[in-house]
Amino acid sequence: MRAVTIKDEQLAVSEHPDPVPGTGEVLVAVRAAGLNGADMMQRIGRYPAPPGSPQDIPGMEFAGEVSVCGPGAQRFKLGDRVMGIVGGGGQAELVVVHERQLMPVPENLSWPQAGGVPEVFLTAHDALLTQAQLCLGERLLVHGGAGGVGTAAIQLGRLAGARVVATVRDTSLREQVTALGAEVIDPEDFVEHGPFDVVLELVGAPNLAANVQALAVGGRIVVIGVAAGAKTELNLLGLMAKRARIHGSMLRSRPLEEKAIASRRVEHEVLPALASGALTVPVHETFPLEQAVAAYDSFAAGGKLGKIVLVMSHAA
Amino acid sequence: MRAVTIKDEQLAVSEHPDPVPGTGEVLVAVRAAGLNGADMMQRIGRYPAPPGSPQDIPGMEFAGEVSVCGPGAQRFKLGDRVMGIVGGGGQAELVVVHERQLMPVPENLSWPQAGGVPEVFLTAHDALLTQAQLCLGERLLVHGGAGGVGTAAIQLGRLAGARVVATVRDTSLREQVTALGAEVIDPEDFVEHGPFDVVLELVGAPNLAANVQALAVGGRIVVIGVAAGAKTELNLLGLMAKRARIHGSMLRSRPLEEKAIASRRVEHEVLPALASGALTVPVHETFPLEQAVAAYDSFAAGGKLGKIVLVMSHAA
Repeated sequence: MRAVTIKDEQLAVSEHPDPVPGTGEVLVAVRAAGLNGADMMQRIGRYPAPPGSPQDIPGMEFAGEVSVCGPGAQRFKLGDRVMGIVGGGGQAELVVVHERQLMPVPENLSWPQAGGVPEVFLTAHDALLTQAQLCLGERLLVHGGAGGVGTAAIQLGRLAGARVVATVRDTSLREQVTALGAEVIDPEDFVEHGPFDVVLELVGAPNLAANVQALAVGGRIVVIGVAAGAKTELNLLGLMAKRARIHGSMLRSRPLEEKAIASRRVEHEVLPALASGALTVPVHETFPLEQAVAAYDSFAAGGKLGKIVLVMSHAA
Repeated sequence: MRAVTIKDEQLAVSEHPDPVPGTGEVLVAVRAAGLNGADMMQRIGRYPAPPGSPQDIPGMEFAGEVSVCGPGAQRFKLGDRVMGIVGGGGQAELVVVHERQLMPVPENLSWPQAGGVPEVFLTAHDALLTQAQLCLGERLLVHGGAGGVGTAAIQLGRLAGARVVATVRDTSLREQVTALGAEVIDPEDFVEHGPFDVVLELVGAPNLAANVQALAVGGRIVVIGVAAGAKTELNLLGLMAKRARIHGSMLRSRPLEEKAIASRRVEHEVLPALASGALTVPVHETFPLEQAVAAYDSFAAGGKLGKIVLVMSHAA
């Protein structure tokens, strides 16, 4: 099979042996695979795949058709449209994944849309609903509202009945983010727009002290990205006075059972809203697998709203 | 009535007007009132009482007899033995408190024991069970195991089926803390004894980085004291890798409904174990109300295990 390959910080598309599904696993003929910030970090050697995942093939999400069911795998039948997260290896013509990590693809989603769903919606749902336990009517602040996780988080927050505020640095994207249902503000001003019950932090260290300051009593900060730095000063007395908590979280390193539980929750709670059109998957641009380098460069350039997705063609 | 009084950082016992119970409130003839670390801070002007509590009378816990039921108060009858937390004013011959904040005193507890229960058991129960959601079989680290909250936390942790480790700086107290059910270790070495699922932090900033290091995946740190400092560096990536969370908490500033809920949980989950003797209330020393200054000085001197409790005599 052909797959995106990262070796010695060089990105290419090259030939790999076809993976073989083991017990409980499914071989998926990948039709689309979204790009994520984590891929950019992996490209420069800063975010290696966890043990058990392909080390040289990036890709944390995919959508495609069930091609082979391994021994004991019984949730899906050949040809079923499925999608899911993996620790790596999603940006390939074929991927092997445990059937408990898969979700069905709603009929109305195109392949590029489906390929851009799993990582951002699982991440946003897990952070907001499972960890922060966002409630009806609460005020949610999403940092980086124009990003993939940001757009998913804004929509999920609205769907859960929260009042959503989002910071967006790029002024040219603010109108589109507003259309997703958020009140869009400048990243410099967010403390004045508080207090917030939940803060979704994708930027990292520079925001933390101000996040605590902007929290409501009983507020929760969920840190799922530290692109702008990881180390920062924390005032514990401030956290105590707010009776607040700070969660750190990442999906990629979790074991099968935790990824499966997160997938079940998204299947039950989020897919119906994707199927009805209440949630949308903005796709900015698709690239054929062979043009992966151009896709990565486009992602890294930023300045756009919506997913960048690789699409794979398979002989019928 | 006579009451401990703090004014201009001077501690004394002086005469105050008797408080009058309002709607839903109860006037309690206080028999015993424990001292806590917070009182030491209030004495030096660092921890003022929250609005709505007596500003000049310290005391966050008490036990005594119901003396007058205000309009609409119906949970208790005259003479009932009750105990509870208050935002201030507990170290007095009389205290007014909402009936929802009161708990009955188990028959087997003496007045000094009962007067030392509410603050430390509510604090420890709320931190470990409500916030950290400590589970059967988990490993709990209690920093400052010889303190009032520490001894309560060790016992509650054991009762909940956790495996409890406690740091104790004073070597002369280690045997007594071991007898409460903890594996006692030196505060310098705690990281080597990890990983811990839950860490109860009463010391503050100096421990935080090592706490994160000592956490298990999915671990929780609950910060309820910062005696040794509040500001510290936090590595968010470490928190993300552990998928961990940090809670900040304090009881004193909470509104009536939150104190009432915490009291109901302790009533239901902790009082039966106090009544059966499964939980004990170590009392180190009692002082008559008039000797409050000596009591405070004894508390501040440290080096002992168990509560220091003021006792009040009332004409029959």
